Amino acid sequence: MTSLEDLETPSVVVDLDVLEANIRRMAERARETGVRFRPHAKTHKVPEVGRLQLAAGAAGISLAKVGEAEVFVAAGFEDVFLAYPVVGAEKARRLLALSDRARIAVGADSVEGAASLGSAFHAAGRRLDVLLKVDCGYHRVGVAPGKAAETARRLADLPGIALRGVFTHAGHAYLAPDRTTVEAIARDEGRILAGAAEAVRAEGLAVAEVSVGSTPTARVAMSVPGVTECRPGNYAYHDASQVSLGTCGIENCAMTVLATVISVPASDRAVLDCGSKTLSSDTLRPAGFGHGWILGLNSRLEKLSEEHGVVRVEPGESFRVGERVRVLPNHACVVSNLHDRVVLARGERVEGEWTVAARGRVR
Amino acid sequence: MTSLEDLETPSVVVDLDVLEANIRRMAERARETGVRFRPHAKTHKVPEVGRLQLAAGAAGISLAKVGEAEVFVAAGFEDVFLAYPVVGAEKARRLLALSDRARIAVGADSVEGAASLGSAFHAAGRRLDVLLKVDCGYHRVGVAPGKAAETARRLADLPGIALRGVFTHAGHAYLAPDRTTVEAIARDEGRILAGAAEAVRAEGLAVAEVSVGSTPTARVAMSVPGVTECRPGNYAYHDASQVSLGTCGIENCAMTVLATVISVPASDRAVLDCGSKTLSSDTLRPAGFGHGWILGLNSRLEKLSEEHGVVRVEPGESFRVGERVRVLPNHACVVSNLHDRVVLARGERVEGEWTVAARGRVR
Repeated sequence: MTSLEDLETPSVVVDLDVLEANIRRMAERARETGVRFRPHAKTHKVPEVGRLQLAAGAAGISLAKVGEAEVFVAAGFEDVFLAYPVVGAEKARRLLALSDRARIAVGADSVEGAASLGSAFHAAGRRLDVLLKVDCGYHRVGVAPGKAAETARRLADLPGIALRGVFTHAGHAYLAPDRTTVEAIARDEGRILAGAAEAVRAEGLAVAEVSVGSTPTARVAMSVPGVTECRPGNYAYHDASQVSLGTCGIENCAMTVLATVISVPASDRAVLDCGSKTLSSDTLRPAGFGHGWILGLNSRLEKLSEEHGVVRVEPGESFRVGERVRVLPNHACVVSNLHDRVVLARGERVEGEWTVAARGRVR
Repeated sequence: MTSLEDLETPSVVVDLDVLEANIRRMAERARETGVRFRPHAKTHKVPEVGRLQLAAGAAGISLAKVGEAEVFVAAGFEDVFLAYPVVGAEKARRLLALSDRARIAVGADSVEGAASLGSAFHAAGRRLDVLLKVDCGYHRVGVAPGKAAETARRLADLPGIALRGVFTHAGHAYLAPDRTTVEAIARDEGRILAGAAEAVRAEGLAVAEVSVGSTPTARVAMSVPGVTECRPGNYAYHDASQVSLGTCGIENCAMTVLATVISVPASDRAVLDCGSKTLSSDTLRPAGFGHGWILGLNSRLEKLSEEHGVVRVEPGESFRVGERVRVLPNHACVVSNLHDRVVLARGERVEGEWTVAARGRVR
């Protein structure tokens, strides 16, 4: 039997017991609230994880990029929503090819963007399902709620485009100072989007989907009346940021990085063989010290260079060269995107590995 | 003829004219100062770039991880220094296999670390070349200069280990507020390491290599008496951080990311299809605003999420959905590690692509 001790480092380890529990728990919550569940697979980029999510009751998956959808559709996924404002004629051609094999929808927040996709579909005598992105306060992409009805009307009028619904993402929840604020943002996320959907319906347009989504807000947002779908992603793995946000406990984090202490140059400094090429440089959200927590210790990764993780050693703790530790990353989604494979474990027992099939599919 | 206009976005583009000039210029400087030149290939992870560096006069290459060395040795590279404290029995086994096919050396800053490699070599009746890492002020890994002689003696006494020399890296130059400070750090880098080499020699040990290296310090550090080798990496591509540090101008940056404007939600905000999964989250060094510069404009990427690059639009500038821009990344080395391929161009003309063969080789 292979154990974690036999692995070379650094290795990204996914604990299957934790993963399965995370997937089950969020799917149960969606069932409880009666919404469709469409997890965002950008977190793991692994078709095998997507299948576990479908088996637990997901209606389909969300992704961001056309290249990710190509990987998942090739792996047999039949219902994919690209929760992203896809733009451009070449992307339209690829979406058209995907539409032969799966039910595809994309996000849009501009007439110009949707038009750049619609013409290829119109020329083929078909229509691409589009969900209008509404800005519920994150101020990244999306139209202001007051503009939703007008923009939806213009999207619905575009040749080759069919309006399926509206969607939003409360990314600002990741900056909320406490769980109470996260929950207030989650309620707003649902209410603002449901209100936008009503405004669109008042234009005489059908709105089949009212889709919210983010791991910190999901459990609350999906219970808001009028919401029909939820798209959390990170919940499958969780990470140090989710723990900091109060979404979960450390015991609910499925992804860790097994690392080796390669240097102890000073009593207050140790260096691991995992740097930003293993953990990414993403900071802890909403705020906080360091680039990764070391399980079972108070010492944390203070800074990263590409292949070095520099630990600030807390008083009473010590490290020795050659010793192994497990690091809880700040942000699991970007760690997935750095690695070709993840190792599967249950506790200390290694059960195999998965290929991160959609890794690097940024186009 | 294919042009940049025909590419899908986001695409990482390497301008060959700029790359070739960068490689030529640094190799000339090494020749001028009489040091061996061993560029760090972690920046590009592309054997074809490494071959250009050898053709320009490099004596060999530097890398960090054993997995990177496996890729480059398989591609025919015959002289590789892992400028990194490699640790562990399994790594030793792989280094032993590499040593059958190439001249290999590794860094060490602890007796425990080197011993974990030496035993496998000793058992095979061979010795692994080791360079002792000396801390010249960066305070990441490496022994204090005053400890160099003693540690070198203990390394040289280890079964299976041969001491080749000493090396250092002035990573703190990346935090220097101005070029004058960078040059002072560069002189210290050379002097401290040359002094450590003398102390080791006073122990009766041969020191064949006195190796410095970092792109901001390289041109000065390699001219310090006693230095025998230099290992800059980033200079092949350069990036916004090197421009900020005064190492080069924007026109010397070979790597850009071609991106599309996917959303213009407000007059002061535009969003590109490149986020942290394309550009990494690395910040601008030594300090400064944003996550990437947009060539020809004052507007910069203010924040990134995984697939979104949010531009703060400066007064007098504007963006439209579907428009393409070129982004100069903060840090080229980590961008390489996110992508399977880079597109080769001369100006607007596309000349092919290279596989980033050592991408993701973190073990």
